Amino acid sequence: MISLDKLVAYAKATGYIYQGSELYGGLANTWDYGPLGSLLKNNIKKAWLQKFHDESRYNVMLDSSILMNSQVWVASGHVGGFSDPLTECKNCHTRHRADKLIKSHNYEVNPDEFSKEELEGYLSEHQVKCPNCQKSDWTDIRYFNLMFKTNQGVIESSSNTVYLRPETAQGIFINFKNIQRTTRKKLPFGVCQIGKSFRNEITPGNFIFRTREFEQMELEFFCKPGTELEWFDYWRTYCKSFLINLGLDEENLTLHDHSLKELSHYSNATTDILYRFPWGFDELWGIASRTNFDLNAHQNESKENLTYLDPDTNERYLPYVVEPSVGVERLLMAFLTQSYVEETLEDGSIREVLKLHPYLAPYKVAILPLVKNRHQAFAYELLDQVQKFTSATYDETQNIGKRYRRQDSIGTPFCVTVDDETLENQTVTIRHRDTMNQERILISDLKQYILDRTTI
Amino acid sequence: MISLDKLVAYAKATGYIYQGSELYGGLANTWDYGPLGSLLKNNIKKAWLQKFHDESRYNVMLDSSILMNSQVWVASGHVGGFSDPLTECKNCHTRHRADKLIKSHNYEVNPDEFSKEELEGYLSEHQVKCPNCQKSDWTDIRYFNLMFKTNQGVIESSSNTVYLRPETAQGIFINFKNIQRTTRKKLPFGVCQIGKSFRNEITPGNFIFRTREFEQMELEFFCKPGTELEWFDYWRTYCKSFLINLGLDEENLTLHDHSLKELSHYSNATTDILYRFPWGFDELWGIASRTNFDLNAHQNESKENLTYLDPDTNERYLPYVVEPSVGVERLLMAFLTQSYVEETLEDGSIREVLKLHPYLAPYKVAILPLVKNRHQAFAYELLDQVQKFTSATYDETQNIGKRYRRQDSIGTPFCVTVDDETLENQTVTIRHRDTMNQERILISDLKQYILDRTTI
Repeated sequence: MISLDKLVAYAKATGYIYQGSELYGGLANTWDYGPLGSLLKNNIKKAWLQKFHDESRYNVMLDSSILMNSQVWVASGHVGGFSDPLTECKNCHTRHRADKLIKSHNYEVNPDEFSKEELEGYLSEHQVKCPNCQKSDWTDIRYFNLMFKTNQGVIESSSNTVYLRPETAQGIFINFKNIQRTTRKKLPFGVCQIGKSFRNEITPGNFIFRTREFEQMELEFFCKPGTELEWFDYWRTYCKSFLINLGLDEENLTLHDHSLKELSHYSNATTDILYRFPWGFDELWGIASRTNFDLNAHQNESKENLTYLDPDTNERYLPYVVEPSVGVERLLMAFLTQSYVEETLEDGSIREVLKLHPYLAPYKVAILPLVKNRHQAFAYELLDQVQKFTSATYDETQNIGKRYRRQDSIGTPFCVTVDDETLENQTVTIRHRDTMNQERILISDLKQYILDRTTI
Repeated sequence: MISLDKLVAYAKATGYIYQGSELYGGLANTWDYGPLGSLLKNNIKKAWLQKFHDESRYNVMLDSSILMNSQVWVASGHVGGFSDPLTECKNCHTRHRADKLIKSHNYEVNPDEFSKEELEGYLSEHQVKCPNCQKSDWTDIRYFNLMFKTNQGVIESSSNTVYLRPETAQGIFINFKNIQRTTRKKLPFGVCQIGKSFRNEITPGNFIFRTREFEQMELEFFCKPGTELEWFDYWRTYCKSFLINLGLDEENLTLHDHSLKELSHYSNATTDILYRFPWGFDELWGIASRTNFDLNAHQNESKENLTYLDPDTNERYLPYVVEPSVGVERLLMAFLTQSYVEETLEDGSIREVLKLHPYLAPYKVAILPLVKNRHQAFAYELLDQVQKFTSATYDETQNIGKRYRRQDSIGTPFCVTVDDETLENQTVTIRHRDTMNQERILISDLKQYILDRTTI
């Protein structure tokens, strides 16, 4: 498997991912998605929308603001409780999350529900070491709220403090009534949202795995109380299939079902889908049955009636919610990690290939004129045609073998070569990324050929 | 034409656009895009990407961070100069932008290059009135920077101040070298970006026309100095065609070419494409030839060499830039304004129709079982099939006439009705939104029929 350092270097060299603000020495923990990375990101979002929205009888979409009334975050508990326990090493002055220190010290312990005193006690009793200098001498814990604050309007004052949303989910909950009213959907139904969220993490890292600015894909699936565990199983299976269908290897996935001790107080079932990242298994997708916790919190805070009138039973109740929540960047990182391979060929040379699912590949097709001077004009015309139905690129520099390798290394599944025969009989060579096999087909068959092989 | 008030009410009632944070009394000037609005927004972005990226030989994509190193905004001039001249009415205490007051007083005057004293002088000499109370008594002008500020990291201090980007363009400029290096593109080439930007406007308004949080679609097209006016004309025409192809009426568009006096100091050509909004013509799309102003500013600030080595002439130079920049929300508002019509039918009743271009319509198809009990099962199966190739919805409530009207009012171009004949011979009725004509076709022909009529 590719190492983390190599992945970062590969992403930068190919134009998948650049360091954010690199021209000015960077800005810690920000990343810019280049020509390839932005296309891959778009394809991931498109795949999710297709499977969670377009092809669903149940789900509709929402695109709510990043800036919301602060009461939203009071009701959701983020103003009061969305904070990390911060401690500093008295020896080397690096800052750490106390809960993470304890978890790395002993994976069996669950510090999430520890009080400040319990966290401090654990650190000193167990002599938990600083990962930086190996000493164990910690300051008292301070709680650090993870929400980015800013001010909206002309005057800076607490009355116009607004937060950058730390999750897209609350935008869905506060619009539950609006959506139900305007779509006239009956339960069960779900609401999908893709959008940026921001968390002022103390210890971001692992490349794009944990960043302060990130993009979420969340579904809040509303259902009748009593049916939620059935739906929880449904979406748990659905998410896993989604990942496997897009090319993640089942052996690199682990489903971690939370024990009673690990469950949040409002959840009656939670599963983390873990993926084998370069540093080991880590969280990719969280699926949680959240009961009516969120709607109830907003009902209490807003004093509005958020209940649903069940047309079959004429009862009024707050729906229960199942939430599959995943980050675009983590998915992208999983797909890159999974797809990158170095093959040793018969002649001993190394072939770098990115074996992305063709649906995800930034470019499905590369159009290559065999000899620049002779075949360029025809190749450009073909490019125009192909770009009408799929994402395509063009390359005319260096010999054809090198161009094949370049496309292999960025994940392009099909290279289409224009040569003398093309001009004679309107056929092209198609060369396959994974097998390196070549075949000759009519240009008139090209569209269907490519479309058939790039769907999910 | 639909009035602004009616548009807001229509958008809310149908689920196109809700007030942001409505459950908590709203947050000024924020809007949430409901099931229909979020789909329309996605289709607008898809159309732009298709025409500016996918089908282009020249352009590649980028997705850079919202949070960037503050030096980016020093170099670009936003820290020093991106501010509005704020004045307050001493009588009614409403706040206004001095430049806007002067512009509404006399459209011929260009206050953009006025100094503070000139602005104050103009307001008092011409007795410019307060739009709220009609008095003319203004405070001195204060400049108010439009960038939202926040702090990244654990400690709040000026050293970790970061801004929410006020435009996506700078993300492209600072990545120019990275992109050129990794794509090995020769000039001319362009970089497309879609993303959120934030401006703490003093006077936002007109529904979604001017909001503090908005989404931009920007292209920075890099070319050889001396060719920029040719490319400027090319993109100016291209943008206009894009709008007309997607259904805006040419009569509702005006191209305003900036006079020498109006041009920014760094620009040698700028055109605003104006659309006839409910309150009159207003800016929709800005196309500006920006010379090498931005790259030069970043080269000076970063001390990095941002020149391009021309392989044909072996010269090194900073490319010139042509920038077409448009907001997703404004486009969305133009499409809604253009499409909403009330038709008086033969029987005197009013038919509400949203005549969106089929490509833009949130749902291309509505599947309607004629009689719920008899046709529901078949209709659901058909829905599953149709959702594999296009965006579709389903409705089984009330009589078929009412369901047709409901789909008309949200812009669905095709209603597909399942009836007894369907069960016998696998045909369905297709009913057209704009003509209300109906025809009967084989289900096996449905996919091609719909795809042929929903492209751009």
